Amino acid sequence: MLPLHLQPESHIPLYIQLRDQLRSLVHAGDLRPGDRIPASRELALTLGVHRTTVANAYAELESEGLIQGHVGRGTFIRANGNGLKISPPPLPVLHNGDGLRWELLFADERSEEILTRLTASAPEDALSFVMARPAPEFFPVEELQTCSHAALRREGPEILNLGPSDGYAPLKEALLELLHHDGIPARDETLLVTAGCQQALDLIAKAFVRSGDTVILENPTYPGATAVFHGVRARCLGVPVRTHPEPGKPLGIDIEALEATLAANRVKLIVLTPDFQNPTGTSMPLDSRRRLLELAARHQVPVVEDHIYARLHARDVRVPSLKQLDQSNLVIHIDSFSKVAFPGLRVGWIVAPPAAIERLRLVKQMTDLHTDQLAQATLAEFLRRGLFHKHLARMRKVYADRLQALDDSLRKLMPEGTRWTRPEGGMCLWLELPPGFDASELMIHSRERGVLFAPGRYFYVQSPLPNTLRLGFASLNEKQIARGIAILAELLRIEMRKRQRGTHRAHVALV
Amino acid sequence: MLPLHLQPESHIPLYIQLRDQLRSLVHAGDLRPGDRIPASRELALTLGVHRTTVANAYAELESEGLIQGHVGRGTFIRANGNGLKISPPPLPVLHNGDGLRWELLFADERSEEILTRLTASAPEDALSFVMARPAPEFFPVEELQTCSHAALRREGPEILNLGPSDGYAPLKEALLELLHHDGIPARDETLLVTAGCQQALDLIAKAFVRSGDTVILENPTYPGATAVFHGVRARCLGVPVRTHPEPGKPLGIDIEALEATLAANRVKLIVLTPDFQNPTGTSMPLDSRRRLLELAARHQVPVVEDHIYARLHARDVRVPSLKQLDQSNLVIHIDSFSKVAFPGLRVGWIVAPPAAIERLRLVKQMTDLHTDQLAQATLAEFLRRGLFHKHLARMRKVYADRLQALDDSLRKLMPEGTRWTRPEGGMCLWLELPPGFDASELMIHSRERGVLFAPGRYFYVQSPLPNTLRLGFASLNEKQIARGIAILAELLRIEMRKRQRGTHRAHVALV
Repeated sequence: MLPLHLQPESHIPLYIQLRDQLRSLVHAGDLRPGDRIPASRELALTLGVHRTTVANAYAELESEGLIQGHVGRGTFIRANGNGLKISPPPLPVLHNGDGLRWELLFADERSEEILTRLTASAPEDALSFVMARPAPEFFPVEELQTCSHAALRREGPEILNLGPSDGYAPLKEALLELLHHDGIPARDETLLVTAGCQQALDLIAKAFVRSGDTVILENPTYPGATAVFHGVRARCLGVPVRTHPEPGKPLGIDIEALEATLAANRVKLIVLTPDFQNPTGTSMPLDSRRRLLELAARHQVPVVEDHIYARLHARDVRVPSLKQLDQSNLVIHIDSFSKVAFPGLRVGWIVAPPAAIERLRLVKQMTDLHTDQLAQATLAEFLRRGLFHKHLARMRKVYADRLQALDDSLRKLMPEGTRWTRPEGGMCLWLELPPGFDASELMIHSRERGVLFAPGRYFYVQSPLPNTLRLGFASLNEKQIARGIAILAELLRIEMRKRQRGTHRAHVALV
Repeated sequence: MLPLHLQPESHIPLYIQLRDQLRSLVHAGDLRPGDRIPASRELALTLGVHRTTVANAYAELESEGLIQGHVGRGTFIRANGNGLKISPPPLPVLHNGDGLRWELLFADERSEEILTRLTASAPEDALSFVMARPAPEFFPVEELQTCSHAALRREGPEILNLGPSDGYAPLKEALLELLHHDGIPARDETLLVTAGCQQALDLIAKAFVRSGDTVILENPTYPGATAVFHGVRARCLGVPVRTHPEPGKPLGIDIEALEATLAANRVKLIVLTPDFQNPTGTSMPLDSRRRLLELAARHQVPVVEDHIYARLHARDVRVPSLKQLDQSNLVIHIDSFSKVAFPGLRVGWIVAPPAAIERLRLVKQMTDLHTDQLAQATLAEFLRRGLFHKHLARMRKVYADRLQALDDSLRKLMPEGTRWTRPEGGMCLWLELPPGFDASELMIHSRERGVLFAPGRYFYVQSPLPNTLRLGFASLNEKQIARGIAILAELLRIEMRKRQRGTHRAHVALV
């Protein structure tokens, strides 16, 4: 009997779990060179997983030189000499090529990676629903050339010299105008320029959160937020996001669960995305926003409002932002050019009460002195010339059409038992497979067919639902969307038919 | 008797200490509206400080509405109603303009600011030796316009889209060539692009240092380094930097003190600047570098080498960097375009063993996803076209001339009893006033005369020497340097004459 314990509810794909556990058994000496391991079909049946899961794990172990298949005889653990990765980690030896054992110094054992790993091994022409990022074919490259050229000509020495930590003055002015236009109250002393929303979260964590503090996040949420707060060793509590409305229970963060969590814990910060939430695409209705702010005020807990998708509304009507509704100066509003313009220019901003901004400015100074000024000056010019509003209007239309195409394809092709959210903007949609299905397993097949998405488990703070997945639709055109969804639907139907034939769970008898 | 306790060895200027202590006495009720406080001359004599110190403190308290002078009668504490800042902080009240008491949420009481505050209230035409920053009149603005234009034309969509956390590939290539040219070993997997050296320190702290870990810094050192490691709640130990050589005791970090510190503490990291150290301008000779690396290897402690000034050598000969001498893969080498090119473009890099770089890449991703790509692409083009080497050669000559002018002026004008370092490059020089003098006091006078510098106390990790100061010479031309030093020398002579007439220390009898 081999002690293999796969956790379907883990963040780690099953085949990775299996690969790592088998490798550990070899390292521990429980499996020795020459030992035979079960055929993939046999082990899959025993563990109650798909055969591809086992096949994938074996393929990786074989490429590491840890196991070897012999036709007609089975699969065996290889002799140690051949497997580079199975030798135990080297002891610290000085004055050689390796030197220090750096891994012993890591301040934190977690090595989270924000989704990019998923796309690493995919073919270049894959249809990728993985990322929520803008469509590069619409980037106004020539306009930006003009803007950066004009800014350098006019303000070259200021741009190139060291600048203020709170932001380049012409960009702050242009942002105040943009915020004014949106009805979001801001002044020079309540505005700080950052290198994007990821940095905004990092600065907020450094400024306000200590090790052991409790932070409320949405569950599921943007993994970059979880990573930041885990990074400062906060206790992260995920409050469920309702993805399908029920009578009296609106979309977005579950206000009753939030109330209970606030009552039972001393909470330092609430972090959420009221508009077109990443990953679910849901938005909080006005009434929920008001109730949220009342709760936060009652418990004196600041609220971080991630406003990064809010300008990408498919409909004309917008729900007011938390910052607009905030009567108690509780809201730290963060935003960025990443989604509405170009993520390659790393510029975002924070709107918050003066005391919070002053604190964040000092933290910003300690973190990277200030944000790159060529990017700031170029974007200031882009705003000033009215090019930003023009670009945004165009992209709102593009993304609304893509969202519509995605919903159309899903309605037409998805088998019964699946359901998905109905975002009214943003860049992503949340799909639930029938209960018992694992999106990571589906991904193994769909990757082979050249279609990628983000399995839902990556987005959960706790209690992941393995049957969920996120579809980022902004960087695929309508045709690509239709083709990708057709492939996903076909694969899902195949898996559902297999499932109907049945599999059992059992234990593993070995050697 | 008023309990006033000024600490000349503190990081905080004396007049600020005095102002804050008087303000506290009012808040505590020890001084009440209508109470008379001593005349500035009287209090200065009693405390053994310069009259200007007291005058400055009084001026600030008067502008706050806390005290008021009446001609012929003296200076008095004002009635509460007039002093906005003397009312106690407001209690938390909801739904008003103030709302949350943000200051109660700050994760850390320290609010360090890296020198910029010193220049805040100075006149615009002041001769400022405060910062170590490049000369803006030599910024090659037109070349940069060409570079950013060309890069956007050729690679627009890649530049504007989300990029890799380890750096924009064309910049990494260009940097590898630069490093190769300098004899610094690096490969793609040992190189990470950052948003400058400040960020490099931030990433290193996050990746390798936990709360309570011990970090060795030079004493004095760059305050931005101290701020970063204090920020992660490390224990910072300053090892003295020798600014004047003695037989058998070379310049730079005191190797014997370092050895003793390593023996007595479990040290996580050593951080130092072997070339033209900030703030002292000193460089470690080759033999010290070798001994340092031997010690670090023996104790298995990684060494962060800040290489930011190293390319600005006034002489032709360069001492090899720690990274070049590193046989044990112990060195994390950090560098940036800030000093050798333009600090407004926030781009730097780290060279370290692959395991360390992989860890830093993940931390970078959590911190800000990646460095701004317009800046990266522009600098890649600047390197590729050979413009960087041309610019650097020109600036080395400019800064060498300025350094020579500074040394000449000091030799000609400084009174006996002062001494200063003899940097062979970089951007700063370290001056010691005669024992008993306080550079912060001198700064009060010199600011009035339009000359600014950085008092030495800001640079110390511990045990500050109040009679030291840093002169950043890179952004002043030879004439400005001569004029500034003439004013400083004159003021110092005046103070020395006053000092000869003598002052006494005593206690304060009040009211």
